[in-house]
Amino acid sequence: MKIAVDAMGGDHAPKAIVEGVLRARDATEFRDTTFILFGDEAQIKPLISDGHGIEIRHTTEVITGEDEPVRSVRRKKQASMVLAAQAVKDHEADAFFSCGNTGAVLACGIFVVGRIKGIERPGLMPTMPTITNDAGFNLLDAGANASNKPEHLHEYAKMGAFYAEDVRGVQNPKIGLLNNGTEYDKGDDVHKATYQLLKDDPDLNFVGNVEATTILQGSADVVVTDGFTGNAVLKTIEGTAGAMMTLLKDNLMHSGTKVKIGAALSKQAFKGVKAKFDTSRYGGAVLLGCNAPVVKSHGASDNRAVYYAMLQIHEMVRKDTVTKFKDYFAK
Amino acid sequence: MKIAVDAMGGDHAPKAIVEGVLRARDATEFRDTTFILFGDEAQIKPLISDGHGIEIRHTTEVITGEDEPVRSVRRKKQASMVLAAQAVKDHEADAFFSCGNTGAVLACGIFVVGRIKGIERPGLMPTMPTITNDAGFNLLDAGANASNKPEHLHEYAKMGAFYAEDVRGVQNPKIGLLNNGTEYDKGDDVHKATYQLLKDDPDLNFVGNVEATTILQGSADVVVTDGFTGNAVLKTIEGTAGAMMTLLKDNLMHSGTKVKIGAALSKQAFKGVKAKFDTSRYGGAVLLGCNAPVVKSHGASDNRAVYYAMLQIHEMVRKDTVTKFKDYFAK
Repeated sequence: MKIAVDAMGGDHAPKAIVEGVLRARDATEFRDTTFILFGDEAQIKPLISDGHGIEIRHTTEVITGEDEPVRSVRRKKQASMVLAAQAVKDHEADAFFSCGNTGAVLACGIFVVGRIKGIERPGLMPTMPTITNDAGFNLLDAGANASNKPEHLHEYAKMGAFYAEDVRGVQNPKIGLLNNGTEYDKGDDVHKATYQLLKDDPDLNFVGNVEATTILQGSADVVVTDGFTGNAVLKTIEGTAGAMMTLLKDNLMHSGTKVKIGAALSKQAFKGVKAKFDTSRYGGAVLLGCNAPVVKSHGASDNRAVYYAMLQIHEMVRKDTVTKFKDYFAK
Repeated sequence: MKIAVDAMGGDHAPKAIVEGVLRARDATEFRDTTFILFGDEAQIKPLISDGHGIEIRHTTEVITGEDEPVRSVRRKKQASMVLAAQAVKDHEADAFFSCGNTGAVLACGIFVVGRIKGIERPGLMPTMPTITNDAGFNLLDAGANASNKPEHLHEYAKMGAFYAEDVRGVQNPKIGLLNNGTEYDKGDDVHKATYQLLKDDPDLNFVGNVEATTILQGSADVVVTDGFTGNAVLKTIEGTAGAMMTLLKDNLMHSGTKVKIGAALSKQAFKGVKAKFDTSRYGGAVLLGCNAPVVKSHGASDNRAVYYAMLQIHEMVRKDTVTKFKDYFAK
């Protein structure tokens, strides 16, 4: 198995990327795996003492967070991200990973790695936390598209179901449609039509409409949404969880000695909450609908997040999840 | 001033409603105010010892949470909610308040109280918390509509700006458009077109696109959104804040004695966080664009929430906010 890694994408690149990859390389699961690191050899090489299982493809061109996504992917043909995606297209690697510019990763997935035949609009799918258990739920599309048709949302439901079952091991995953109410006739025309498509699909365990108030409680294993709403929901979860942690920290640190002592004693509980909302243990966001696994992790990823993304990619390649999509959508 | 109150709407009606109204009645600001309570006299009267400033209009018909909104408003003509709205229409009262079925309150606002001439789609607007200060921000439309045109979002921006300045006292309020990125060309066609309308309006202090990650940090005083996305964002904030508080409580209570002692000592800090996310101090959600103040508070409202909604309504009537809307949109 070969994984093409953009070593230059993300806030802590190449250090966090290389360290995460090395951590994976040293784990038993990865004895069958070669990691191809795309990036500046002068920066990457000093980070690697034992080069076993690692290949470096030198390039100095980089797509930054400020680059206009589609244009930069077209023009910076020697960028680490583009070359990594190209390696997958050329069948030199089985999967593509980057922590870089989200829009550019999406463009690399869609235009370089390419869409699966029969899939009109790939969707970006993170795994989010559920507070009731440790399974989490998948949310898609979380923002690969600014607008969607019902048929796209139907594709998301099918791909999300496959992923939840195959990669996350959820039996007969519950599929929910994110809507502005639980009744069947809720939402705009797109969501009303999507409801019917999902309800009438015998392959899906459709549980109906779900509201954003209940998704963190695990109301569905796969939450299907248009890319605009999904993006807003993803960012609202991040923003609200972040705001609450900041607020809690401020309150604990600026409320006198008694509270500070209390905070020190109950530290473990805060760590538990923080760990629950740290979704990097689920891996990165997958761009589902591409010809190979395309995984994008957060720009702020540390080596632990990169390591978990490698585990996730390994599982997708090992289980041949994308081939299952292809077979299903070729029908 | 007369405020028409649906005394039977909400989980704790009529008790919480009547208690909140009495609390307001006894405050100095409300010496000019009569509260007209619509509902079952047999249930309401025993809750009131001093009837000064209170009128009761007896009715036994009630719209429940399970009723289909528009149909129930049309058919249950003697329901407490419908009669309260009707009193505003008939100029017997200056404002309408309910904690009942949200869809039915919207229908009462739009079809009974009526739209302002020139406003195509009234929008539902709660005030949400900001962690950086105590001002909060307005979000609209939070779900009165399942889909919107750019012109509707432009109306929301104008109405939200008026409200923030007039009722909340925010000088030259910052108007942000909720979008899936901050660049001017982000979003679907509706949001791209809205961006131009807001940018070109000299009356608005438009700060551009804002993302859901930053709205709780106060990136704008008024966050303009289509009703579908706004509804999802509102529910995601509620769901995430609720999930985190539950999780924190569980972790504090089930992690051994040391943590429990710590939790007891630092209680004050948790209360601070909880208070910040308890938005009832801002009042209820206003259905902006109606001929009079229409305010809907949470179904779970306690008497405190009702009291704050009365303060908010009093402020809107006193400052004649709706007349300002009318004058502006008549131009």
